[in-house]
Amino acid sequence: MPVNRDQIKELLEQTQSGRLSVDEAADRLTRLPYEDLEFARIDHHRDLRIGFPEVILGQGKSVEQIVKIADRILTESSNLLISRTSEEVFREILRLAPDAEYHAEARMISVRRDRTERGAGDIAIISAGTSDIPVAEEAAITATAMGNRVHRIYDVGVAGIHRLFGARADFETARVIIVVAGMEGALPSVVGGLVSVPVIAVPTSIGYGASFGGIAALLGMLNSCASNVTVVNIDNGFGAGFVASLINRKRL
Amino acid sequence: MPVNRDQIKELLEQTQSGRLSVDEAADRLTRLPYEDLEFARIDHHRDLRIGFPEVILGQGKSVEQIVKIADRILTESSNLLISRTSEEVFREILRLAPDAEYHAEARMISVRRDRTERGAGDIAIISAGTSDIPVAEEAAITATAMGNRVHRIYDVGVAGIHRLFGARADFETARVIIVVAGMEGALPSVVGGLVSVPVIAVPTSIGYGASFGGIAALLGMLNSCASNVTVVNIDNGFGAGFVASLINRKRL
Amino acid sequence: MPVNRDQIKELLEQTQSGRLSVDEAADRLTRLPYEDLEFARIDHHRDLRIGFPEVILGQGKSVEQIVKIADRILTESSNLLISRTSEEVFREILRLAPDAEYHAEARMISVRRDRTERGAGDIAIISAGTSDIPVAEEAAITATAMGNRVHRIYDVGVAGIHRLFGARADFETARVIIVVAGMEGALPSVVGGLVSVPVIAVPTSIGYGASFGGIAALLGMLNSCASNVTVVNIDNGFGAGFVASLINRKRL
Amino acid sequence: MPVNRDQIKELLEQTQSGRLSVDEAADRLTRLPYEDLEFARIDHHRDLRIGFPEVILGQGKSVEQIVKIADRILTESSNLLISRTSEEVFREILRLAPDAEYHAEARMISVRRDRTERGAGDIAIISAGTSDIPVAEEAAITATAMGNRVHRIYDVGVAGIHRLFGARADFETARVIIVVAGMEGALPSVVGGLVSVPVIAVPTSIGYGASFGGIAALLGMLNSCASNVTVVNIDNGFGAGFVASLINRKRL
Amino acid sequence: MPVNRDQIKELLEQTQSGRLSVDEAADRLTRLPYEDLEFARIDHHRDLRIGFPEVILGQGKSVEQIVKIADRILTESSNLLISRTSEEVFREILRLAPDAEYHAEARMISVRRDRTERGAGDIAIISAGTSDIPVAEEAAITATAMGNRVHRIYDVGVAGIHRLFGARADFETARVIIVVAGMEGALPSVVGGLVSVPVIAVPTSIGYGASFGGIAALLGMLNSCASNVTVVNIDNGFGAGFVASLINRKRL
Amino acid sequence: MPVNRDQIKELLEQTQSGRLSVDEAADRLTRLPYEDLEFARIDHHRDLRIGFPEVILGQGKSVEQIVKIADRILTESSNLLISRTSEEVFREILRLAPDAEYHAEARMISVRRDRTERGAGDIAIISAGTSDIPVAEEAAITATAMGNRVHRIYDVGVAGIHRLFGARADFETARVIIVVAGMEGALPSVVGGLVSVPVIAVPTSIGYGASFGGIAALLGMLNSCASNVTVVNIDNGFGAGFVASLINRKRL
Amino acid sequence: MPVNRDQIKELLEQTQSGRLSVDEAADRLTRLPYEDLEFARIDHHRDLRIGFPEVILGQGKSVEQIVKIADRILTESSNLLISRTSEEVFREILRLAPDAEYHAEARMISVRRDRTERGAGDIAIISAGTSDIPVAEEAAITATAMGNRVHRIYDVGVAGIHRLFGARADFETARVIIVVAGMEGALPSVVGGLVSVPVIAVPTSIGYGASFGGIAALLGMLNSCASNVTVVNIDNGFGAGFVASLINRKRL
Amino acid sequence: MPVNRDQIKELLEQTQSGRLSVDEAADRLTRLPYEDLEFARIDHHRDLRIGFPEVILGQGKSVEQIVKIADRILTESSNLLISRTSEEVFREILRLAPDAEYHAEARMISVRRDRTERGAGDIAIISAGTSDIPVAEEAAITATAMGNRVHRIYDVGVAGIHRLFGARADFETARVIIVVAGMEGALPSVVGGLVSVPVIAVPTSIGYGASFGGIAALLGMLNSCASNVTVVNIDNGFGAGFVASLINRKRL
Repeated sequence: MPVNRDQIKELLEQTQSGRLSVDEAADRLTRLPYEDLEFARIDHHRDLRIGFPEVILGQGKSVEQIVKIADRILTESSNLLISRTSEEVFREILRLAPDAEYHAEARMISVRRDRTERGAGDIAIISAGTSDIPVAEEAAITATAMGNRVHRIYDVGVAGIHRLFGARADFETARVIIVVAGMEGALPSVVGGLVSVPVIAVPTSIGYGASFGGIAALLGMLNSCASNVTVVNIDNGFGAGFVASLINRKRL
Repeated sequence: MPVNRDQIKELLEQTQSGRLSVDEAADRLTRLPYEDLEFARIDHHRDLRIGFPEVILGQGKSVEQIVKIADRILTESSNLLISRTSEEVFREILRLAPDAEYHAEARMISVRRDRTERGAGDIAIISAGTSDIPVAEEAAITATAMGNRVHRIYDVGVAGIHRLFGARADFETARVIIVVAGMEGALPSVVGGLVSVPVIAVPTSIGYGASFGGIAALLGMLNSCASNVTVVNIDNGFGAGFVASLINRKRL
Repeated sequence: MPVNRDQIKELLEQTQSGRLSVDEAADRLTRLPYEDLEFARIDHHRDLRIGFPEVILGQGKSVEQIVKIADRILTESSNLLISRTSEEVFREILRLAPDAEYHAEARMISVRRDRTERGAGDIAIISAGTSDIPVAEEAAITATAMGNRVHRIYDVGVAGIHRLFGARADFETARVIIVVAGMEGALPSVVGGLVSVPVIAVPTSIGYGASFGGIAALLGMLNSCASNVTVVNIDNGFGAGFVASLINRKRL
Repeated sequence: MPVNRDQIKELLEQTQSGRLSVDEAADRLTRLPYEDLEFARIDHHRDLRIGFPEVILGQGKSVEQIVKIADRILTESSNLLISRTSEEVFREILRLAPDAEYHAEARMISVRRDRTERGAGDIAIISAGTSDIPVAEEAAITATAMGNRVHRIYDVGVAGIHRLFGARADFETARVIIVVAGMEGALPSVVGGLVSVPVIAVPTSIGYGASFGGIAALLGMLNSCASNVTVVNIDNGFGAGFVASLINRKRL
Repeated sequence: MPVNRDQIKELLEQTQSGRLSVDEAADRLTRLPYEDLEFARIDHHRDLRIGFPEVILGQGKSVEQIVKIADRILTESSNLLISRTSEEVFREILRLAPDAEYHAEARMISVRRDRTERGAGDIAIISAGTSDIPVAEEAAITATAMGNRVHRIYDVGVAGIHRLFGARADFETARVIIVVAGMEGALPSVVGGLVSVPVIAVPTSIGYGASFGGIAALLGMLNSCASNVTVVNIDNGFGAGFVASLINRKRL
Repeated sequence: MPVNRDQIKELLEQTQSGRLSVDEAADRLTRLPYEDLEFARIDHHRDLRIGFPEVILGQGKSVEQIVKIADRILTESSNLLISRTSEEVFREILRLAPDAEYHAEARMISVRRDRTERGAGDIAIISAGTSDIPVAEEAAITATAMGNRVHRIYDVGVAGIHRLFGARADFETARVIIVVAGMEGALPSVVGGLVSVPVIAVPTSIGYGASFGGIAALLGMLNSCASNVTVVNIDNGFGAGFVASLINRKRL
Repeated sequence: MPVNRDQIKELLEQTQSGRLSVDEAADRLTRLPYEDLEFARIDHHRDLRIGFPEVILGQGKSVEQIVKIADRILTESSNLLISRTSEEVFREILRLAPDAEYHAEARMISVRRDRTERGAGDIAIISAGTSDIPVAEEAAITATAMGNRVHRIYDVGVAGIHRLFGARADFETARVIIVVAGMEGALPSVVGGLVSVPVIAVPTSIGYGASFGGIAALLGMLNSCASNVTVVNIDNGFGAGFVASLINRKRL
Repeated sequence: MPVNRDQIKELLEQTQSGRLSVDEAADRLTRLPYEDLEFARIDHHRDLRIGFPEVILGQGKSVEQIVKIADRILTESSNLLISRTSEEVFREILRLAPDAEYHAEARMISVRRDRTERGAGDIAIISAGTSDIPVAEEAAITATAMGNRVHRIYDVGVAGIHRLFGARADFETARVIIVVAGMEGALPSVVGGLVSVPVIAVPTSIGYGASFGGIAALLGMLNSCASNVTVVNIDNGFGAGFVASLINRKRL
């Protein structure tokens, strides 16, 4: 499925000149850029399109489904990332890839054969509380897997704001900052006001009562009075790490 | 309606000894400590019980109803406070009390004949943004009317946190602090972490989109990670000023 | 991080006069008033700032994390409080502090070596139903740990209001009152109308159906028609006990 | 549409015996017990079935529609009730029925030619605040129109509970009680605990901020800890007056 | 706590005449009409006031607490009802009351020594689906325990409305009708339109997806276009049975 | 943008044989099947793809924008439909199309030059109340414009269910039924249970209090216990009419 | 319960002429078209009325109840369908019907003795992700059981939209399309814009955080900008399959 | 308020060496980096810190307040931006800055004296519908004011997805993409899947019924299955334009 006029013209000229048969040209214009496993269609072009192979969201898939998809991805790509997974899955993946690693706090599996550094600068990951660390780690593992240097600054919530100021040197030179917070979700606004780079806010489901599983933090972040803050889904450390990596990507 | 055993015993002894007739004793035991205007029952004992005459919530009452209630309160008390009211009501109140004042931003009317200072310390009132000032003023007028010294510190939201630190001298000696904020409602947590006195958080309906008329700020405050924060209803500057006054009240 | 101009001037004069080296002065101006355990930053200055050492919220932390934090706090402070914890944690804490106590209903651990009485008056804690007692106990243990005399008045819900009146002597002399209620959350309004001191309302998640895990009680309390009521998060007995202690604190 | 077997058997016997033609029998078995105005189908049997003619809900209908429906109802019934209406409609109704009355606070129009007393006892209508009176009046006018003696007890909210006790004589002998309250909606629980008759709770949209247009009061009432409380829709004074009348109806 | 003037006058006259000592009179005026178990205050007057002893809500109470409260109630009353309980509790109650019964579907325990018939008419209990039966049974057991004749009409939901019409004879003579329904909660409106007696609607948490644990049914019932419908909390079969019993109570 | 392989192969063969130039072939493969007005892109292929020209949603567009879009549509298609519009727009449209009609209750404008009958059967449109008629009319006008015979059955809500049964002959032969209802939204379930054809339920924002602008009706319909019911957005009469027309379309 | 005038007239003429006794006529006019199992009323006429026997919703029913109902249905109908059930129930059903099948992913049991093809065209079932497959399968099994040819197109979510285009040939000739999606629920809009047949959207509870158990997908589908989309309840694959079958039914 | 150790050390060395007086040093360490207008504190350092002067949010401020703040900003910065404002404010600003421009659709005022190009690449702004254009324009004006080249691609919603593909050349080379959409908010997911750069999603309040003022679109975007999507508040075009500018900023 060529997407721009130049590619199409080139293909048509090859057809007209006979270098390409009509059938082959039709194939190229219609072929599937994905692999169909019946229960899943693996998007092998994503590596080219997005710069990273399709990541497997473990949640909601059976161990068998995950292993089959992983097997196919590893055939086409050097790296692999599985999120929201378990040690049980990890044991199976080890058979496919003995160099796979399990990140227990982040509940992720990674295979990292291509370790090219792709970041223009650093990514800082700040968490408000100790309980937010699993989500922060999901962001950190993702950003690392995508070729970035990561700084972790944990447990610097706004109720003891001098802790954040004490750690300022660790985040004020970052090219992009991820802020992970539950409860009132106020930390991204404070961090956002201190820096001039994009801040990606990740609400967590940490809290109780009127935190409503992360809604309080989510709303707080969406209403941030700092203009450099954008937001991802509750507990979506992966998404934050992914977008931060895109922002930080070296221009080639 | 005497409320404790000693008062009841004394009354019974007076009855037994004949100093009090049965009818009078029955009256005292059953009489109404309020005045019935049919559409409103004015609680004249509140002045004794709570330390301030009943405040008239203007919203939802007709001009006539407000004036009648105000008239009855001024008969029994030296002070008067009307909230969520208008200039139209003010013009009518001026006929009853030429010394009444209208506070336009706070939309309140006050009569203040008894100006005894009742506060043990100071009350600081901090607002996050310019648009939160009307609610902050409602708190300030209430606290002033109840005999307190008030410090106003406005527009020191968390996205430019050095503004708050610059004003620190103005609030760090207060006995109780009121923090008024809309949008993400993060300011009470930051202030709460800096001081060792009670902080009363007032969410405002300022904001748009996912602020949902103050819900985002309210939830943020209820989930504050600072332990010295309590919360009142959205836009309830009056309630915050009232409770702050009770906390600050001199022990007699 | 000195916070006021006088402290800074004194430090600068010491530097100018050579009593303080530039390095030491820079240290004092930038040093961290907390201890970094990597997964947690313990705020040792809180004892000075807030008047009580940092309390450990057990929920969301591993046993190891709690024990390490507790160990560090006990090095610097004489008292310790852990909320939302378990007997399993308690067994580990006993090794650090054989004088630790476990409060099963409140699910709290306390170490209380400094038992100075710090309250100016008494704190009354009123619960609406039998099922609300665990939250009420969390408030009671907190207030006791912070040096207050506490009166418990349990199961006096509004549907049998004579029970509340029967217990009136037990709460009408308190300096501050905590009211804990689930279901419709009406009790704080009734209590608030009977007294002239601040009332801290704690909604609980007790109830079923349209109680929505405490939302009904929370909304009821936020909309209280009694002006002396402020609110904390659902089931936040600790926060209520903490603020009540600050309100009740003796002036020194 | 005959509804029970006996009626059907009688009709069939009449058909079999020839006293009733097949056509007429078919008519009776299928005929419409209502009148079709195209935009409305008036249920003339309701008077028999429910004991009161269909009441016209004015909201959402044009003046012309209301007048046409009213005209048809007055042809078949002696009484008429229009709710959520306006003076403009009233002026038109006066042409049809010069004896019509307009109840401004309740925003209702009534025609009452049949004034039979139908209640076995009295109905008490209690409102928490002055602003709740319009809804209370809707209930009162409805219950009066349906042939009941009504006692109004207004402005006895729970924050000054002695006002309620002072009015106890006015409601403790009622056969059924309607309690109208906005804000926290606590009053039905308190009243419910004091009496042994059914209490119908009507939440009102009175309040601001977290009252959410009556949701807080509604949830409070649904979660009432008093077992004798049932609830109707927010601001549905009419429904409360209607059900109270059914409960109070004399057995014939 | 005598409640009316006549009782108070009589007591005062007895005091004046010396038939009653001051101490005894003070006692009577202040004494507690409940028994304090520390974790619960049992309201023994409720039997007189409401016509049925306090019912124990099992949910949220320990087995020990339930048994202690049950023991005290059985000392003062002939009947007992425990809701939202379990077989485990039942085995303990059997030791106190060998004549206790366990109603498994309703999850209730009853002791019924006084079996006086108290109902003026019958109570019909209609359920929409098979899954709603446990809640319907809670209502049925409650109404039976309070001395009423009960008709059960189950699984007559609106999607097969001829089933409801087929059962019409079973409910059209009832004095009050309870309708239990989950999912869209439409049945009370249909039933309400067919009868002229009060209908008590009980939403259930039956359903999935957008039923949101009973919210859909609850809202449907609150918005019923039938004017004779009132509503109780989600799954509150007990409350419906209780109010129905009060409505149906014989006048004495 | 040819969509299937055969079209593509044909185009390629024409290119190879020289009947089609490379440029023209590239044009066909990339050209825009819509017209770009800068503020709107009109989808002229929709007529072919969906069977009806793009309908203009008036809400949120300026008069000028609507007129420009209408002008372009009428160039390519014989029919036109504008929803959620006003008389002001109608006056402008009349200049473009003197045969345009304004349907005031539905707030729609239609031009109908092609009046081919396209329906296989009839479409019945049932409304619960008089106030629901505008939404029902929006559905009716849409279905009529799309070439269907429509039966209107209005004001047959469930609280007087005999009215629905009386009108049964009018809807039981329809090929598809639209049911429009506000308040509790129960009517689609009842209708759904009576017929064997698809029922499209349209919740309306009619109601007050806990109807929450149509949420109650929407949830009721989504939870319908009748399996033949699907739902569209609140007040979306147009969508219901559109889908009903697709279901009813004659097979060609 | 004959439903139209012609049937009634015929029956009356038979009665009049004596061919039918009064008793038998009365029976026919009142008899129950369902079977009463006390806990369930089985609607045997549904087969005629809706074209498929009553389907048993397994959720919320005991194994015994399901088996009894299944037994009765199989007496009257050749086919049977049980949804939201388990292998445990399947083992019991096998005793009644050794030809029953269990569909594990869909959690359904089917008996299919009448395999008449009833569909005019094909039904396409499209799912966005691998985790949505169980709901898609519920729709597929239902549509198959009701006599339709079904095309399954799984894992073609909008974030890799070329996967959907690649599968276009599989759905563009269908008579009706079911689209199953969780998370943002965008797929029905995209599919809807590509075809000219009705699209039934099924939101699933797949997702986390702000997906709120399917609310995000549900709202997305209700607000679809494609006019040919209607929606069923979250996870209601059965309903979607049922309505699709009705739409696709051959005209006889 | 110097923020890093080196700056502090330098300042201290200057003090020690006498080049800086103690008073001046104290001033620098404590001085306010903002200007206090009493109702607003203008953050002049933001220009340095964030790279753009403080933007004035017009909503909630009086004309006088806006003009005063604008006046002060223009003293210190060459550019100015006012959002959510009106022509009335514009007329006043023109007196301060005759070169100010009013962007009617975006409801913004800009002064742009420094027109340095600061973007490394282009920013594409895509809107789903015509009604979303005002929010898209707010983003476009902001990004332009911050020195970026902007491509506008409007009215390419997902229900006619070929319109998006037709415009692909206009957005596939952008460095960052803003996608503005109301209703179901599906467009960011589709765009996100087509590109390898960050996508900022802006939900709009466009829609009706179950769009709930933009909640449906917001939830859709938060749950996007495309990993490169982050979200800002409903209607927050400004925030999207601001963050896109930060992402696109040239490295210096």
